[in-house]
Amino acid sequence: MADKREAVLFFFPEWGGMHMTAWRDPEAPADPTMDFATIRQMVQTAERGKFHGFFLADTLAIRHSLGRAELSRTAKGVRFEPMTLMSALSTQTERIGLILTESTTYNEPFHVARQFASLDHLSDGRAGWNVVTSGTPAESLNFGREEHMDHDLRYRRGEEFFEIVTGLWDSWDDDAFLRDKESGVYFHPEAVHQLDHRGEFLSVAGPLNVARPIQGRPLIAQAGSSPVGRAFAARIADAIYTLAADFDKGREFYEEIKGLASDAGRDPAAVKVMPAMIAVVGRTQAEAEERMERLDSLVVPEVGMAQLESILEFDFSGHDLDGPVPEVPETKLGSRGRQQFFLEKARRENLSIRGLMQFAARTGAVAFGPEELADHIEQWVRGEAADGFNVTFGDAAGSLENFVDLVVPELQRRGVFHRDYSGATLRESVGVPRPPSRYAPAVAGESVD
Amino acid sequence: MADKREAVLFFFPEWGGMHMTAWRDPEAPADPTMDFATIRQMVQTAERGKFHGFFLADTLAIRHSLGRAELSRTAKGVRFEPMTLMSALSTQTERIGLILTESTTYNEPFHVARQFASLDHLSDGRAGWNVVTSGTPAESLNFGREEHMDHDLRYRRGEEFFEIVTGLWDSWDDDAFLRDKESGVYFHPEAVHQLDHRGEFLSVAGPLNVARPIQGRPLIAQAGSSPVGRAFAARIADAIYTLAADFDKGREFYEEIKGLASDAGRDPAAVKVMPAMIAVVGRTQAEAEERMERLDSLVVPEVGMAQLESILEFDFSGHDLDGPVPEVPETKLGSRGRQQFFLEKARRENLSIRGLMQFAARTGAVAFGPEELADHIEQWVRGEAADGFNVTFGDAAGSLENFVDLVVPELQRRGVFHRDYSGATLRESVGVPRPPSRYAPAVAGESVD
Repeated sequence: MADKREAVLFFFPEWGGMHMTAWRDPEAPADPTMDFATIRQMVQTAERGKFHGFFLADTLAIRHSLGRAELSRTAKGVRFEPMTLMSALSTQTERIGLILTESTTYNEPFHVARQFASLDHLSDGRAGWNVVTSGTPAESLNFGREEHMDHDLRYRRGEEFFEIVTGLWDSWDDDAFLRDKESGVYFHPEAVHQLDHRGEFLSVAGPLNVARPIQGRPLIAQAGSSPVGRAFAARIADAIYTLAADFDKGREFYEEIKGLASDAGRDPAAVKVMPAMIAVVGRTQAEAEERMERLDSLVVPEVGMAQLESILEFDFSGHDLDGPVPEVPETKLGSRGRQQFFLEKARRENLSIRGLMQFAARTGAVAFGPEELADHIEQWVRGEAADGFNVTFGDAAGSLENFVDLVVPELQRRGVFHRDYSGATLRESVGVPRPPSRYAPAVAGESVD
Repeated sequence: MADKREAVLFFFPEWGGMHMTAWRDPEAPADPTMDFATIRQMVQTAERGKFHGFFLADTLAIRHSLGRAELSRTAKGVRFEPMTLMSALSTQTERIGLILTESTTYNEPFHVARQFASLDHLSDGRAGWNVVTSGTPAESLNFGREEHMDHDLRYRRGEEFFEIVTGLWDSWDDDAFLRDKESGVYFHPEAVHQLDHRGEFLSVAGPLNVARPIQGRPLIAQAGSSPVGRAFAARIADAIYTLAADFDKGREFYEEIKGLASDAGRDPAAVKVMPAMIAVVGRTQAEAEERMERLDSLVVPEVGMAQLESILEFDFSGHDLDGPVPEVPETKLGSRGRQQFFLEKARRENLSIRGLMQFAARTGAVAFGPEELADHIEQWVRGEAADGFNVTFGDAAGSLENFVDLVVPELQRRGVFHRDYSGATLRESVGVPRPPSRYAPAVAGESVD
């Protein structure tokens, strides 16, 4: 059984490359963030490589982890809004899934249900929703709130929001439309359902004014990492995104999620665990490392230090860049896990401040040759530490193409990746079921959630 | 001067045709509302006819003027969400403007600013925003409100909302992006502006995370008919949509709007007055009338009567369908002007209840041959009762094609319609200026609004 496991792969782009200097590479596109032709070509390349999905992250603000001066040295200031971009891409692709992030915190469920249902129809069943809560102060300030919403409250609202959106998607039965010109009956009046939701945070009457999505429900992705978040993800998500530090931590997370899914009455095989993978891919391992060094060498110290200081939450002014990394107090605002990861890395590899800064500028990117990357993916998938990966590339030119031309065929040879899309819809090609409508009569073997 | 006036034409589709029975026509598309291929072909035909824009109306609910049973006999239950549809169409068209409706009542300005800016970039400067307030109880109930917002309050919020959206569009200067790989400078930090709006209804910090729209500001359309609405439209709109009962009323409205625009310090020529025109277009006048009669004959009495009763706000049960139209008390909920228009029509033409019902099912559509329609357009545009029209067709197959193939060439021969798009952007082809950023230094001859 474990030998037949095939990886699910999403392409998770970082415009201009994950490495902070990647946009400066001579081969990188001139405008990596807001030139539609560049993005279209990238997605079409991913589709040629049979990636199951194209996955867009999002933030409802410009990045605030860097000051304005430092941000201005990166390609991270502006980008297309995800729903409009995905709708445009739906016409430029045929098989790849289109998964995008929409917040449950600063949105109205009627709009979200409507836009995703519409995208699912435009793309013939290839839409996916990455369900997030918005937790940064910068985002709150764009939506009239001085204080961002408390974590648990955000999740409570998120759960209610999700219930409403999925309820609105069921407004029209799959077979509601007769469109019989002869009799003049366009739809069956009894096939339309009023939601009439009144809850803790939201009240929505419905019905939605869009037909039920082709997939019944767009594929649901989630990335909760807190206990509340994991439990939510295991209940609702078809694909769970995570940051896994190493294989053993990956296996632990995998096992936990499958257990939680099972506890929630779901088939664990239909909940795909997909860690992040951030790669600079060369035609060989040596070429990848060479490219990484070239990108490292382009780091502007002010920008690199700002990035490092925001991760470690520590002011390095007065320290010698080429000296050792000093003792750093525990972070109060950021992620403690990430801070520890960086400090341990510096200790283990005896890195100078400059060395750690260059590493920080990679934003997690690791150099791989095709064989090495195929080994990694095969190990995690066969070893049940992952069902697949959310793949991001460190650079903006070369890695995606090398992945598609060299890594994908190697994975296919090894039998750990599909040779072609196996279904018409995203759910079908990923291998997760089409949810029945909550109004459908329960059928043996189906669960009405 | 008046002889050189060229009409601005927007194609304002009603899926399935404006006539309530049009979807039943044997030549009408099988699925007129949610089949993308059908809609794409329609818009491409409009682009072949050099329509300046494609204009989507919207309602944040399913139609509630008809009961569920009556609605089920029409094609008016479901449709694509406008922003997703327009984004998809941006890749399938090259010159036609893409103008869509977004409400200022049940939205967040950050989302609206972001999606329109993104669409303007995706379409290379062809986006337009029809600014509306949402006033129906059915819409309120989809957004957590028991009572819909008072008319004047809605307009106050609308004005503030508009100020925020246009402010967010100016977040990035037009020349903010250097993207200089050599020096590592991606953008000029001083070219980014924080909005920090705190108002009566909304607080938004900004900046937006999308570059300034190609057009500076998407073309702005508005359709206010109340005194408050007209004044708002004259201040902000580039194109004003209206329902004009006849040529004289059209001239009055035209004159009023141009005066209000002038009072607001704007160039009246840059505020386009565009009445609705709802046509069934035949290859001859006789063919158009024949088609209209065919559509009239398909009216199902229950549905037609429901439509008529909702317009007149009167219960006809017990009356003979073939008898005269009785006295009807003045409407309390609907539009008094519309009610009077119908009652006068019945009196003038001595219509039976059935005749008036069939007329109501036309939803305003009038039969025209190519010469007759060209005459109408020429008269209104040369006579300064309109700068152009929002054209909707009564049927779902035939009228658009006849308009493009027969009316457009006739208008071009007469010199009242452009022979091709005159600019790259929607603003350029309509002939309205690109607004400078509110942060740009004022230049002689430009107004910073």
